[in-house]
Amino acid sequence: MTILPTESTLETAIRRRIDNKTKPLGALGRLEELALQIALIQQTETPVLTNPHLLVFAGDHGLAAEGVSAYPAEITYGMVKNFIAGGAAINVFCKQNGLSLLVCDVGVNGLFAENTTEFVKFKIRPGTRNMRHEPAMTADECAAALDAGKTLVNGVRYRDCNVVGFGEMGIGNTSSAALLMHRFTNLPLAQCVGKGTGLDDAGLAHKLAVLEAVAAQYSHLNTPEDILAAMGGLEIAAVAGGMMQAAENGMVILVDGFIATAALLVANAIEPAVLQNCIFCHQSDEAGHKLMLELLGVKPLLDMQLRLGEGTGCALAYPLVQAAVNMLNDMATMDVL
Amino acid sequence: MTILPTESTLETAIRRRIDNKTKPLGALGRLEELALQIALIQQTETPVLTNPHLLVFAGDHGLAAEGVSAYPAEITYGMVKNFIAGGAAINVFCKQNGLSLLVCDVGVNGLFAENTTEFVKFKIRPGTRNMRHEPAMTADECAAALDAGKTLVNGVRYRDCNVVGFGEMGIGNTSSAALLMHRFTNLPLAQCVGKGTGLDDAGLAHKLAVLEAVAAQYSHLNTPEDILAAMGGLEIAAVAGGMMQAAENGMVILVDGFIATAALLVANAIEPAVLQNCIFCHQSDEAGHKLMLELLGVKPLLDMQLRLGEGTGCALAYPLVQAAVNMLNDMATMDVL
Repeated sequence: MTILPTESTLETAIRRRIDNKTKPLGALGRLEELALQIALIQQTETPVLTNPHLLVFAGDHGLAAEGVSAYPAEITYGMVKNFIAGGAAINVFCKQNGLSLLVCDVGVNGLFAENTTEFVKFKIRPGTRNMRHEPAMTADECAAALDAGKTLVNGVRYRDCNVVGFGEMGIGNTSSAALLMHRFTNLPLAQCVGKGTGLDDAGLAHKLAVLEAVAAQYSHLNTPEDILAAMGGLEIAAVAGGMMQAAENGMVILVDGFIATAALLVANAIEPAVLQNCIFCHQSDEAGHKLMLELLGVKPLLDMQLRLGEGTGCALAYPLVQAAVNMLNDMATMDVL
Repeated sequence: MTILPTESTLETAIRRRIDNKTKPLGALGRLEELALQIALIQQTETPVLTNPHLLVFAGDHGLAAEGVSAYPAEITYGMVKNFIAGGAAINVFCKQNGLSLLVCDVGVNGLFAENTTEFVKFKIRPGTRNMRHEPAMTADECAAALDAGKTLVNGVRYRDCNVVGFGEMGIGNTSSAALLMHRFTNLPLAQCVGKGTGLDDAGLAHKLAVLEAVAAQYSHLNTPEDILAAMGGLEIAAVAGGMMQAAENGMVILVDGFIATAALLVANAIEPAVLQNCIFCHQSDEAGHKLMLELLGVKPLLDMQLRLGEGTGCALAYPLVQAAVNMLNDMATMDVL
């Protein structure tokens, strides 16, 4: 007697359910794959998405002092104030598409007013150290940043959220992301480094030179945690921790662009099962992101040439995720024809 | 003294407005182009989208008798009943994304109950004639179908709708669309014909042979109206008429997949200005659609491998269209930083 594993039986049932909807077989394309993935994450034929959240983690980067970004470091502080005031792109898109936005300061160089329902202070230090001279974080600081992400995810899970996107803000963080990509994919650094918020060619060459030096400095490090501490960012570590916790909680994870996917590479190196819960929302215009996605073997939902971060790709793609679930639950079956 | 044309002045002002939002220059990619297009359609720096509608026109095809579709012709009638009952994909996606759905019978072979706020009877005849033997429509029937589309668009415009998507339902209508594509693009028929709702290779070969014969039969026709009458469909003509009227009314037009774009090729041949008002919502999995879009020089918003029609691509892409407008109106400007 052969006993099929539960997963296969459930997968067969979900596929049958999709195929029996009033449409030609396979005619809803990638929406059907998405519905199957979400149903398998929730281990049910009738998944639901409840209280969707977008968590944006913000932190500054000591490496910004080396001139690796087109914008000054102070922009991180200004943009977090903009998030709190409701004026950023991520505010507009979350509001439109029904996601609750929660912003968390894990390492901004600047002080904010009190916590609100939409803003949490979890500052570990006012920006990372300059990794050109010393590791960006100590092991303890890095662990605290991972924990900040986990804590916030558990907080929203407790409020019945079962789908969560991750965004980030931090001038200089495409540099960290490129270094992490280089280490976790083994691709040459030149393929990982891009223009970020808008460097010119000379700026890009300078950024690459700085990052080559940093990469050489920490090439002896081997564990994901050590690499993350040396070359990551507080907000990147928080995103990585949040993703690991979300997967452990059985939540659907919305993955944004270059920085968020770099955080996922770290999370995936620590806990590969995270990947099953991930929906890749868009392909960033930042050069390395396409390569990251190819290496992960995934095709994102949108390709709108965004390069803004903040989780904007997650918020914009969310209606497609919701549509996949609604298709599964609300479309009529073939017997009506 | 040089006086710039109004359009250029306005375009400059809109671009400045977009560039002054709290984001790096160009960081919202294609959303920025979309915002510019909509603002130019409405000739304002602060466009709004009001009372969005999705109009689905349904009609049967006499050519279905030649075995060109994987599904029997009766499915058209069944699916329109499904639209009325609210169980089809387009019902689910319109409801989710806040579009009002209006279904119109211009030529279904079957009777329906009375008109409702969501269903309009405008039946010209119960399906086209079999174009293998005689033109699908007379000139009068084709003109009536074009008018049906125009009338419905004026009806929703009167109710303050300024953005309208077009869907269609009609077993056999990828055949009409392929023939229209062949005539309006001059591409070989083999590049225009696809598997529709799911033909196998033998079915596809048969479809191509039938369509080659039809194309030869009407190769002497030259005006868009004559070609449409001979090889079009009642629902395709209605979509073409609706698009022309929407452009004339200054409305934003949401273009769906292969059939809807074939209708646009007709509309564009009659009135080229239509194109400026069109937002291309998705790239269909039907083979010829990619070529159509390339010839039009446009890149659609979504590529989800859909091949369902009904206007589903429009309904799924609509939140991106709304996001472009919200970005323009609701994001803060750089002076907050």
